[in-house]
Amino acid sequence: MAQMPRFVPPFQKDAYIVISTRPLAAIVLAAGQGTRMKSAKHKVLHPVAGRPMLLHLLASLDVLKPERRVVVVGAGRDQIERVVADTDVTVAVQEKQLGTGHAVAQAHDALGSFAGDIIILYGDVPLVRPQTMEAMIARLNQSDQPRAVVLGFRPADAAAYGRIIADGDGIIEKMVEYKDADAVERAVTLCNSGLMAIRSTDLFALLDRIGNDNAAGEYYLPDIVMLPGAASAVIEAEAWEVAGVNSRAELAGVEALWQARRRTEVMRDGVTLIAPETIFFSHDTVLGRDVVVEPNVVFGPGVTIADEVTIHAFSHIEGAAIGKGAKIGPYARLRLGATIGSKAKVGNFVEIKESELGEGAKVSHLSYVGDARVGEGANVGAGTITCNYDGFRKHRAEIGAGAFIGSNSALVAPVNIGNGAIVAAGSVVTQNVPADALCLVRPPQEVKPAWAQQFRDQA
Amino acid sequence: MAQMPRFVPPFQKDAYIVISTRPLAAIVLAAGQGTRMKSAKHKVLHPVAGRPMLLHLLASLDVLKPERRVVVVGAGRDQIERVVADTDVTVAVQEKQLGTGHAVAQAHDALGSFAGDIIILYGDVPLVRPQTMEAMIARLNQSDQPRAVVLGFRPADAAAYGRIIADGDGIIEKMVEYKDADAVERAVTLCNSGLMAIRSTDLFALLDRIGNDNAAGEYYLPDIVMLPGAASAVIEAEAWEVAGVNSRAELAGVEALWQARRRTEVMRDGVTLIAPETIFFSHDTVLGRDVVVEPNVVFGPGVTIADEVTIHAFSHIEGAAIGKGAKIGPYARLRLGATIGSKAKVGNFVEIKESELGEGAKVSHLSYVGDARVGEGANVGAGTITCNYDGFRKHRAEIGAGAFIGSNSALVAPVNIGNGAIVAAGSVVTQNVPADALCLVRPPQEVKPAWAQQFRDQA
Amino acid sequence: MAQMPRFVPPFQKDAYIVISTRPLAAIVLAAGQGTRMKSAKHKVLHPVAGRPMLLHLLASLDVLKPERRVVVVGAGRDQIERVVADTDVTVAVQEKQLGTGHAVAQAHDALGSFAGDIIILYGDVPLVRPQTMEAMIARLNQSDQPRAVVLGFRPADAAAYGRIIADGDGIIEKMVEYKDADAVERAVTLCNSGLMAIRSTDLFALLDRIGNDNAAGEYYLPDIVMLPGAASAVIEAEAWEVAGVNSRAELAGVEALWQARRRTEVMRDGVTLIAPETIFFSHDTVLGRDVVVEPNVVFGPGVTIADEVTIHAFSHIEGAAIGKGAKIGPYARLRLGATIGSKAKVGNFVEIKESELGEGAKVSHLSYVGDARVGEGANVGAGTITCNYDGFRKHRAEIGAGAFIGSNSALVAPVNIGNGAIVAAGSVVTQNVPADALCLVRPPQEVKPAWAQQFRDQA
Repeated sequence: MAQMPRFVPPFQKDAYIVISTRPLAAIVLAAGQGTRMKSAKHKVLHPVAGRPMLLHLLASLDVLKPERRVVVVGAGRDQIERVVADTDVTVAVQEKQLGTGHAVAQAHDALGSFAGDIIILYGDVPLVRPQTMEAMIARLNQSDQPRAVVLGFRPADAAAYGRIIADGDGIIEKMVEYKDADAVERAVTLCNSGLMAIRSTDLFALLDRIGNDNAAGEYYLPDIVMLPGAASAVIEAEAWEVAGVNSRAELAGVEALWQARRRTEVMRDGVTLIAPETIFFSHDTVLGRDVVVEPNVVFGPGVTIADEVTIHAFSHIEGAAIGKGAKIGPYARLRLGATIGSKAKVGNFVEIKESELGEGAKVSHLSYVGDARVGEGANVGAGTITCNYDGFRKHRAEIGAGAFIGSNSALVAPVNIGNGAIVAAGSVVTQNVPADALCLVRPPQEVKPAWAQQFRDQA
Repeated sequence: MAQMPRFVPPFQKDAYIVISTRPLAAIVLAAGQGTRMKSAKHKVLHPVAGRPMLLHLLASLDVLKPERRVVVVGAGRDQIERVVADTDVTVAVQEKQLGTGHAVAQAHDALGSFAGDIIILYGDVPLVRPQTMEAMIARLNQSDQPRAVVLGFRPADAAAYGRIIADGDGIIEKMVEYKDADAVERAVTLCNSGLMAIRSTDLFALLDRIGNDNAAGEYYLPDIVMLPGAASAVIEAEAWEVAGVNSRAELAGVEALWQARRRTEVMRDGVTLIAPETIFFSHDTVLGRDVVVEPNVVFGPGVTIADEVTIHAFSHIEGAAIGKGAKIGPYARLRLGATIGSKAKVGNFVEIKESELGEGAKVSHLSYVGDARVGEGANVGAGTITCNYDGFRKHRAEIGAGAFIGSNSALVAPVNIGNGAIVAAGSVVTQNVPADALCLVRPPQEVKPAWAQQFRDQA
Repeated sequence: MAQMPRFVPPFQKDAYIVISTRPLAAIVLAAGQGTRMKSAKHKVLHPVAGRPMLLHLLASLDVLKPERRVVVVGAGRDQIERVVADTDVTVAVQEKQLGTGHAVAQAHDALGSFAGDIIILYGDVPLVRPQTMEAMIARLNQSDQPRAVVLGFRPADAAAYGRIIADGDGIIEKMVEYKDADAVERAVTLCNSGLMAIRSTDLFALLDRIGNDNAAGEYYLPDIVMLPGAASAVIEAEAWEVAGVNSRAELAGVEALWQARRRTEVMRDGVTLIAPETIFFSHDTVLGRDVVVEPNVVFGPGVTIADEVTIHAFSHIEGAAIGKGAKIGPYARLRLGATIGSKAKVGNFVEIKESELGEGAKVSHLSYVGDARVGEGANVGAGTITCNYDGFRKHRAEIGAGAFIGSNSALVAPVNIGNGAIVAAGSVVTQNVPADALCLVRPPQEVKPAWAQQFRDQA
């Protein structure tokens, strides 16, 4: 064989080396109405693992460095255009829903003078791996050069999927819709995912030759396989890879498939998940070795966690970097721009946003730290609030190394607490505090004897 | 057929139109000891989806508008009477546990002069749908008029259930206890749920004819089917519908069945559940379209959520109405009487109780808002507490539109913050603040240089 | 039979009565590298239900009161020694990884003059129950006295486990590695767990006779069964009991097995778990009857809960004792030394540490109570913080019976609030408050009319 697919562990795309021999273009079909989603949002923009399905596909395509990428849309074109605005992706429009063959044909102009291999994907089939895509292309360019390469799969329940009848070498003898299949064909377990690789020179010539002589009056892409002239081939994907999304339940199903695989990966790489089924990762979560994650933790996008970190139960973490040996939670919420130093501690009912905690710093209870820097070894007491917002602008608070902020204090930013300074409990600090000083903002204590007794008597 | 059951989507009872031809009465058996529950609470009062099992049945019966409803109880009669006190339900007592036939007979006097159809239900079989009940009654009144209609089901594991031997038209040839069944009968997968529909004129006459000549010395309701004279019929329910509760594990099992179905329904109707298995609904939760619910959210009773609301992870919501486009959580707790305006925001570690948030109002962090009104666009800073309780009475706080409450403030109710007013951070506000005014409650800041250094040196 | 295993409900070890006829020693093998764990922590020290796997085994052994316990370790010896430092466990070292037979031989010297029965366990097979261990020993001492007793099991997927060929009495005819088994032998579903009971007089003599003539050049413990001379016997464990841990995924699997069994037990004993799969117990959690646990609750070590307690969703509880009828959560965090009185209430976003709440006391919202005593019927308002730490030492706060602490107060310990006293909202209390007095720490309220309007205009 001229080329073999280079399989790599999933999600480790950096380790993946592409050896392409010909230029590649991708056509992503996203023109379906998605009515069963019952949503104002375009179907392919519903997120899986915190990223729109379409962007999962585009990220996987990135690994293959295609020359051109065309997304074919119908309704909701503007939503798609907004999402791909900063990319090299071209949007083509299918004005009428005349079938997948017709949809692919709409990409013709957008491809312009492109000549090479084309891979056809579906915006609602987001989990296809780069190595699977490349295996399709590699097969297309094998010595026997099939007309097209179809991606097949064997579902647990083949149900009403179209069947692929192929010989032992994967050369396709027949592709047949379930409703047209006889009993013998229905007994075949190899089904058609719809994904295809094909040369640009073949694709559009073949599309011109297929008809729409069927009940729906639509042009079906798979029909090009059965056109006379040359044989096509099938290669197989795992069923989870080609799971499609037509409803919210299927969206939840694809999310579950993604999460299950990711949990398995992180455990394999040396992370303890006490209850894996209760941990939800984002598409880009990075975890070090000997990280321990207690039950019920949710990761949003942009999280990086160093070795030996413990994430206690009920934590919610997004946009944060956590240093080695830090202890987080339970009930910690880290938001965008939270940078937690090594051996630092973020305790319960604590929110950190756009702030840096130095090595060994502690914010243990019921606090909000926003737009602040907390120095090494500083201790921020329970109930402390950084008042970073005046209703119009955000301001910063600086807390020096080794400083001690008494409980229930409010630091009204902009404000600077010097190294080693102490802020007495309950202080509202509005002016800077010098290093090693004590800051007190507290009225005298007044006591009215027997007042409580009288109040009760009158109540 | 004279009548056919009118199937409706489950849980959409308002869409359900009952066409009854004869008066209906219901007998609900709830006289079992429930010893395996190991509970001081009556078995049928253990809740599923936040509502006692018995009330699930009564709510389903409501759809059929029965003329009479009788609950037959044994031990724990007072608990049942308390729960049905404000309803038209009659409680009959079975003093001794002499079998289901005997239990049904105890309803005789409570039914008084009632003449019509009777449906016999079980208080610990709470999931039976109204349309299934009606299908039983419809079958009873079909042209061939069977003596009784038995509800059968086909469990995954038929185990020791009694078997129903019936012909192709559902006419029962034999009903047999598992222990008395031969191998051929045991191979039958149709089992007896115990539920039955029968005419009042037949029921009590037949009960007089059954004996208690069995090991337990009990009168078994199903025995009336096999009495000579007329044939009975079976119709089939789905197995989940007749799942019964005899232990806490089975209670959890019925809860899981209920939740699984409800999750499927809300997704079908256009709600995104990222991890459906982590979302727990109440029996009456109402959700709009394009609502997104992140993992780990618990709904208590009385919640209504408008379109396009996002409920972030770890939120706990009961007795609340949430307006269009609002953002809730993570870690938001909404309690009875929380009314959240459209585009309002309730952030992390925030509790709202008996309070109204206007459109676009924000309570983002670590706050308690109770017995208050927060005006449109107002911003309640981190750590704000409405002090609504003086140990004896509750008082109200009013926060005007566009007001800004600085962080760590305490608003001692009754108190009124005017529109557009600003409360400085850390203020304890006890008197009203005029519109557009600034309120400051703050002692001067005092600094003792080097004090912290000395304190450390001595420590 | 001379002795029969005395089966007891699992986890109720106090109810277990051991009748031993001969001295017992245990050898626990813990010399595997555990490389697939990818962890700096020794494999057998990874916790299940909050307790290192090795300690699960040692606790189960405690029930059998063995005379000697030897743990055979390879790498990571110091970690193991630290964990067993305060016990009577001896650590033996296997310098080279020469197989399980060789590993067992390393325990010889540590056993010294011991003569009696020996049970051989594996540090990464932590769930074996005491009654199973005893059944092995009982079988060893039955009248027919087999050479060794091997613990077999029947996994759902026998896969590559070694097979045990035995007659109807459990006398072993052959033990065969999967790779050496023929088709008939592979069809046998009884597999070898590796656990064994054997007399000390036999063990070391037999180990001297086995060879290492195999591909790995290792000495295999099971080979002693097939040595000529005497027959061994097999008894069967349930498969979950002998689940082993070689990876983080398997660790999560064993955790899941443990949790599933524990959930079943507590429900059987009269606890309602609304969503059992979301509740995580510690190895030592004790729960009373009619306790209700809402979804998503995590128990750490050292928790005891009396009857009729409700634990609301999202609570995290460790090291706490909770009295009858108390209400906890949602979002309650109870830490080491929290003692909650009967009918007391701990509400949302509340942390309690080393503190005692009297009967009927309430801490309902957003509070930190550390190193404190809260008297009977006292009410601690929202946002209250006990300032127990000055950066060097912890101090105690005493809140008297019936006291009322206004919201957003800070109690700077050491401090004493008398019985029935009232602390006004927002007070920072530094001096003791007499019983029945009112304590006010509050500057006057200042209002600057129109200031907010001007601020907005300039912003």
